[in-house]
This record gives sequence, C-alpha cells and structure tokens, in this order.
Amino acid sequence: MKKLSYVDHAEEWLSQFSFYIPIKVRFSETDMFGHMNNTAPFVYFEEARIEFLKSVGMFEDLSSKAESVPVVGDLQCDFHQQIYFDDQLRLYVKVESMGRTSYDVHYLAKNQHDHVCLTGRGRIVHINPQTGKPVEITQEIKEQLTTV
Amino acid sequence: MKKLSYVDHAEEWLSQFSFYIPIKVRFSETDMFGHMNNTAPFVYFEEARIEFLKSVGMFEDLSSKAESVPVVGDLQCDFHQQIYFDDQLRLYVKVESMGRTSYDVHYLAKNQHDHVCLTGRGRIVHINPQTGKPVEITQEIKEQLTTV
Amino acid sequence: MKKLSYVDHAEEWLSQFSFYIPIKVRFSETDMFGHMNNTAPFVYFEEARIEFLKSVGMFEDLSSKAESVPVVGDLQCDFHQQIYFDDQLRLYVKVESMGRTSYDVHYLAKNQHDHVCLTGRGRIVHINPQTGKPVEITQEIKEQLTTV
Amino acid sequence: MKKLSYVDHAEEWLSQFSFYIPIKVRFSETDMFGHMNNTAPFVYFEEARIEFLKSVGMFEDLSSKAESVPVVGDLQCDFHQQIYFDDQLRLYVKVESMGRTSYDVHYLAKNQHDHVCLTGRGRIVHINPQTGKPVEITQEIKEQLTTV
Repeated sequence: MKKLSYVDHAEEWLSQFSFYIPIKVRFSETDMFGHMNNTAPFVYFEEARIEFLKSVGMFEDLSSKAESVPVVGDLQCDFHQQIYFDDQLRLYVKVESMGRTSYDVHYLAKNQHDHVCLTGRGRIVHINPQTGKPVEITQEIKEQLTTV
Repeated sequence: MKKLSYVDHAEEWLSQFSFYIPIKVRFSETDMFGHMNNTAPFVYFEEARIEFLKSVGMFEDLSSKAESVPVVGDLQCDFHQQIYFDDQLRLYVKVESMGRTSYDVHYLAKNQHDHVCLTGRGRIVHINPQTGKPVEITQEIKEQLTTV
Repeated sequence: MKKLSYVDHAEEWLSQFSFYIPIKVRFSETDMFGHMNNTAPFVYFEEARIEFLKSVGMFEDLSSKAESVPVVGDLQCDFHQQIYFDDQLRLYVKVESMGRTSYDVHYLAKNQHDHVCLTGRGRIVHINPQTGKPVEITQEIKEQLTTV
Repeated sequence: MKKLSYVDHAEEWLSQFSFYIPIKVRFSETDMFGHMNNTAPFVYFEEARIEFLKSVGMFEDLSSKAESVPVVGDLQCDFHQQIYFDDQLRLYVKVESMGRTSYDVHYLAKNQHDHVCLTGRGRIVHINPQTGKPVEITQEIKEQLTTV
C-alpha cells in the first residue's frame, strides 16, 4: 500500500477495521474508460458510514427537529487498484480521532481477491439543523463510536 | 422517428416545442459501453422540467409548508440515437393534456447535429406535502403552463 | 394498482414474477423532498435486468469484440407509492413479448411491507457493437429468457 | 477559509485560479437533508478537470488505442459552506506540482455570492491504457498545463 497522510502504520491501521458492508459495483457506476467511475467511492463511503452510524443508534432521528445531524466536513479517497463492473467489495469503516463536536471516519475497500482497492477518510461534524452550529458529542456516543 | 404511443403526428408534435435548456453529457454519465448510460436522460428530464416550472413561477416555494409540490407519477423515455460523452443536447419540454390535479410533460432532446436523440413524457401530480393528497391546479396556473 | 398500458390482468401479471434482487435505498438517492429521487428506479431497473441476464448467461462477454450486446430501446416507470431512504425493496424482473432481435423486460418493486412501489417496462435490443445493427436472438437464448 | 493541508498561502492560492466552468446544482444532486449531497462535488471536479484538459488539447484521443489516458490517483474535497439546489457555482481548476508521470489538480468552487464553498485537490496519473503503466508526460504538455 502506498504511503498515506492519514495512516501511520499500515498494518496496524488495516487490522483495526471490523465493521463493513458489501458493495457490488453497478453498471451505471462504470464509465467509458471501462472501469468504476471515480465519483462512485464517495457514494459507497456514505452508505458504509451511515450503516455504521445506524449500528450504534446515531442515525435515527433525521427530522428537521432533530437536535443534531451528522454532516461532512471533508472527504478524501485514494485509488489503489482498478475497480470494475460487478466487483464485490467489502467497504470497511471505523472512527478515529474523536473530537468535541466532530470525528474522523476512515474507510477501506477490499475486492473479492482481498486486495486493497480504496482507502479514505473524512471529518464528520455534528450540527444543529436549525442553527447550523456544531453540537457537542456526548460521552456516551463517543464511547459507542469508538468501541465498535 | 419511430412510432410513439404518446405522439399522434410527429411533425406537429416536434414543432410545438420551444422552451429548452442546454445539456452537456458528463463523463460520469457514460458507462463501459462507451456511451451515455440509460439512466442519465431522467436526470436531464428533471432538470429541464424544473427549469420550465421555474420559468412560469411554479417551483418557488419548496418548503415543507408549501401548499402543493409537483411529484412524478410516471416517466418514460425512448432512445432514438446513441448519445456520447460531450454531446451537446437541447432538452426541450412542453406541457400537454392538462387535468384537474395533474398534467403530462413531454420531452425532446436534439444533439449538436440537430438529430432527435431522446423523446419522452411523464405525468406530474400536484400534491399537498402534508397530506400527500392531490391538489387542484388553479385556472391561472393552467394558463401559464400551456401558453409558454 | 392503477391501470397500466403494459399490464392486461394485474393479478396474473404480478404472479408471473419470480426472479428478484434486493435493493436498499441509499441516502445519496434521496432528494430535498425527503424521498427517493425519481431518477433512482432506472438505476435499480438496470441492476436487476443485468443480474437477470447474467443468471441466464447473457451478460458475459462485454468486450468490444462481443457478437452482440443488449442496449435499451425505451424505458418507463410508474410510481405507485412513495419510497424513502433505507427502504428495502425486492426488485423483480421478467421477460415478456420476445421478438426477433428484441424483447420487453418488465419490472416490479415491492417494499418491506410488501406494497407495490414501482412497476415498469422497457425494450432491450441486441445489437452488434461494431455495426450498431440489431442481431437476431437465437432460439436457445429465447428459451432461456422466457423459462426463468 | 479554514487551514488546508494542500494550501500554503490562502490568498495567493485563491488568486492563481483563472479557468472555470459554470455549474448549476441539480435537484437530483440534493438529498433529504435539503442541501447538495456530498458526492456531487466529485462529479463537478471531474467535469471541470476534463474541460480544462480539453482546453489544452489533452483529452482528445479517448480510444482504447490512445497512447495515454489520465486516471485519478486520489481525490479530496473540503466543504466550506452549505450548497443548495439551484446554486450557481464557478468551478475553478488549476494544475500544481507537475511530476514526471503525474500532476496535482486543484479545485475551487465559489457560489453566486462569491463565497468559497468547496476546495479540493487530486493527483492525475497518465497511464498507458493497454499496460496500465504510468507514461511520462512530455515537456510540451507540461508547459501547456502550467501556463493556462
């Protein structure tokens, strides 16, 4: 795996993922270069992240009256290997570097041959949907997010 | 142009379009067969339809307190000619067969060589966003929609 | 179920589906009206159609030297019920009205409450990727497609 | 503007953009949180990048016999401000840190109020489509890319 700014020790980093969702690359997600278009990983990242948040009860109340909703502060993705139509990926996700109102989510995709295809990360900020202001994350939630 | 269930007289039908928006086919809208993926026209149809509705003042209040919002009842598209990356389309739209709570929107796409590439239609129903029930379209709006 | 131009007897038509794929509505497939955007069903239809064609061995050779590839002639979709984020659909597909070089694919989506949400159909034409001309479908393939 | 790992001096960095394309946020690019979904910027980045490459004659031969094609090595995006349906963005793009077989593309999006909404960057590698191996970028092309 190439050197990544968000990974200190590759082996350790890889070993810390356990939660994942399966992804099958859709035909409509390919492009005329014959492989998965580079915009698709961010769709996969979002799906994996939300499934993860749901698994710890943090993506339940999505109404406009919710006290806080998770929004994306930044996103990045490294392409390690070509991905093709019908490839079957395991899209892993974990939480790193928990802050007061935000945390980093890290991503890893392996294909059916167990090769690392994609890695990535992005900051999630919890904001109040009425005011748009960051909302402090409770100790309880912090523990849920980091013990999965 | 092939025979279409929603077109009686092709020449007359084609001549009745005047409103259009320009569309440039994005790279991410192609697929591994080397052409525009078949899901893209519905994105173009929606963009053209909304621009049309905006042009007659019918897509202004999108809040959850709006009295009525336009929703899609059905959609169809005929593919007349291959469409490729970077093709420049004119996406025409017009309203046909106005009803009490709904109306048909017809679509036509011509490419940079003035060839008919896509035709289509779909029913738009105005509903109350709180109740989900159809809402009667006022005489004033009917006139706006059909005189463009 | 409302009356559809492509369905003669609703009960019989519904009972003839057996092949399906599961679909989970992605967050990125919703829109600001709070439900699944109307362009998403065509992505689901394509995924279900291709899985079906794969299941009968008809979506194997996708190289530019393939003798024939399936392309979309037209597509339509009826929206019977609102679809929301995280809904779990069964996307059924079957082949109807087999022709010499093309056939109709019919679609049906039921949600987790077993309600009909979407129905649809579309013509698939087999063409030679070099010439763009329709290619006759062999008797063997016709039988595979219609006996699933 | 918040501190970014890929920007040394914000003012200088901002002032070095000149090439841009207009982007209008589509309804289908929003999500149920009421704003542009976080996957859309990567579609915009690709469109802007390709228009830029076209403008210097570097996105012409896309056939499978092309000597080299540009592929994405990594991508990142920072979200500075909420983006909504119908917002009109100027999507700026420039080339930075030219290497032997790759270069960085930087991105900047400003909205109709001239506010910075998105910034980003990503490595583009030129590869031989047959071998998948990196291809050296000629001096002529390097000059074209960096003098726009």
